Amino acid sequence: MDTITAADVSRAADRIAGRVRRTPVVQVGPNVWLKLEVLQHTGTFKARGAFNRQLAAREVGQLDPATGVVAASGGNAGLAHAFAAAELGVPATVFVPETAPVVKVSKLRALGADVRLLGQQYAQAYEAAVTFAQERGAVFCHAYDQPEIAAGAGTLALELRQEVPEVETVVVAVGGGGLYAGVSAGLDGSAGILAVEPATAPTLHSALAAGEPVDVEVSGVAADSLGARRIGAIAFDQARRTPPTSVLVSDEEIVAARHEVWSRFRVVAEHGAAAAWAGASKLPQDGGNVVVVVCGANTDPADLH
Amino acid sequence: MDTITAADVSRAADRIAGRVRRTPVVQVGPNVWLKLEVLQHTGTFKARGAFNRQLAAREVGQLDPATGVVAASGGNAGLAHAFAAAELGVPATVFVPETAPVVKVSKLRALGADVRLLGQQYAQAYEAAVTFAQERGAVFCHAYDQPEIAAGAGTLALELRQEVPEVETVVVAVGGGGLYAGVSAGLDGSAGILAVEPATAPTLHSALAAGEPVDVEVSGVAADSLGARRIGAIAFDQARRTPPTSVLVSDEEIVAARHEVWSRFRVVAEHGAAAAWAGASKLPQDGGNVVVVVCGANTDPADLH
Repeated sequence: MDTITAADVSRAADRIAGRVRRTPVVQVGPNVWLKLEVLQHTGTFKARGAFNRQLAAREVGQLDPATGVVAASGGNAGLAHAFAAAELGVPATVFVPETAPVVKVSKLRALGADVRLLGQQYAQAYEAAVTFAQERGAVFCHAYDQPEIAAGAGTLALELRQEVPEVETVVVAVGGGGLYAGVSAGLDGSAGILAVEPATAPTLHSALAAGEPVDVEVSGVAADSLGARRIGAIAFDQARRTPPTSVLVSDEEIVAARHEVWSRFRVVAEHGAAAAWAGASKLPQDGGNVVVVVCGANTDPADLH
Repeated sequence: MDTITAADVSRAADRIAGRVRRTPVVQVGPNVWLKLEVLQHTGTFKARGAFNRQLAAREVGQLDPATGVVAASGGNAGLAHAFAAAELGVPATVFVPETAPVVKVSKLRALGADVRLLGQQYAQAYEAAVTFAQERGAVFCHAYDQPEIAAGAGTLALELRQEVPEVETVVVAVGGGGLYAGVSAGLDGSAGILAVEPATAPTLHSALAAGEPVDVEVSGVAADSLGARRIGAIAFDQARRTPPTSVLVSDEEIVAARHEVWSRFRVVAEHGAAAAWAGASKLPQDGGNVVVVVCGANTDPADLH
């Protein structure tokens, strides 16, 4: 089931209401708004999909209070799933590579997660999480490529349609494509999407060029949040049905955008989120009403002064 | 003229509409909201008063395009007046003590201000600015204690009354009291005010105790933004007519609040703004609907990671 619809996003919004923050928008130019998803629980939009995934599993009796959920992520998805599990009172097991930074492991543990260090590569942690889910009956929580994850992320599009009804283009950063797919489904054709990726992690761009998802080399400043090596099946399906405008930005543009977002708006964005602002800067001045999703702030702000 | 009214605040809102950002609020608890004034131009609420002061002067023909405005402030007020002057196309002269940090002088110059370094104490810079205004005909712009400055700051209260109509208490940090006075006038009795000051800079608290504005010693982590040595006459007048609840917070509480605002909401607040959150933490859990004004973010975020 690689397709999500506007109805899936609406159901997600009902499901997670009261669990996530309704994040604000601020107008920063005559036709430019920011959707400040940095204010979301755990600092990124991922909390939306995490709650939607776990609550959907609970609705159908699959969320076992003894085994809870399992994920493979030392990053934003892991934090969001650990947070949601704690809120729902179930255990979260999170597999991460042994190479994961100590600070990330500490954050997961602070949220109550059972962190398992395993292997040198993300793929090994991922396989271990899948196996754990199968053997223990824990709910497997993907970082982006599950319908509930993408539909949950898309709930922010329903908010911004109310907040900025005149929106014509929504700008999102793309890694695995969960946010992109959900927002596209949530917009349901009411606005276009500018899908922004680092030139060093062009999962959607490459898939659109190849006509199918392909593995890409991933590197660069935003790899900690936009580090997926292949666009998700749900996102690719969405892109085929409702093609976005796809643009690439350089690391230099991302770094400059991150500084600009701080100096002009006093908003701290992680590099992956700053990519969206970098992409928005490429839009024509008279390109209509634009909402830029600032989707995460899990970053060290030390270099912003 | 030490009294401002709700009508003054309404006039200010009309005057500065389109010049300042309408800053968003975000709900962060069942009965707690943040008014994110950190998103304002120049990073603090001061832009509101600066535009109101300068535009009011222009309305009555006092804003000379040749001499412009003059202020004495190496901090947030100076930045706001320099920004407003640049937007209005008039020169800004800003007097600061020779002891001012280079980074602040650079920021003022980057906004186009003519920065004059003078003396070792703020009082000397202040006197020089007053003299400059008298001799050259420049519009003197106070940091807080002018009716247009306070009424301009109060325009954020009109916004939050629309955004959170159920508000019962507004929490503001107090230095010279311009923000406090304006918000109190703008609320016009529709909600109470918790006025928060560092224990090391208790200008309002001491004035309320003494029955009149008195000089206080000022020190501590928030002195860069809450560094006034005496509550303004307008703020004291407002406090006498509509008494706020006045609380003091320690430097330790301010530092902890600044970290909490970052870790829970990914909002960077300067110490002076974090004081409001520290004060809000002293409210009873069932104390009704609270809006905390996060009024500035001109701070080095390096220590927040």
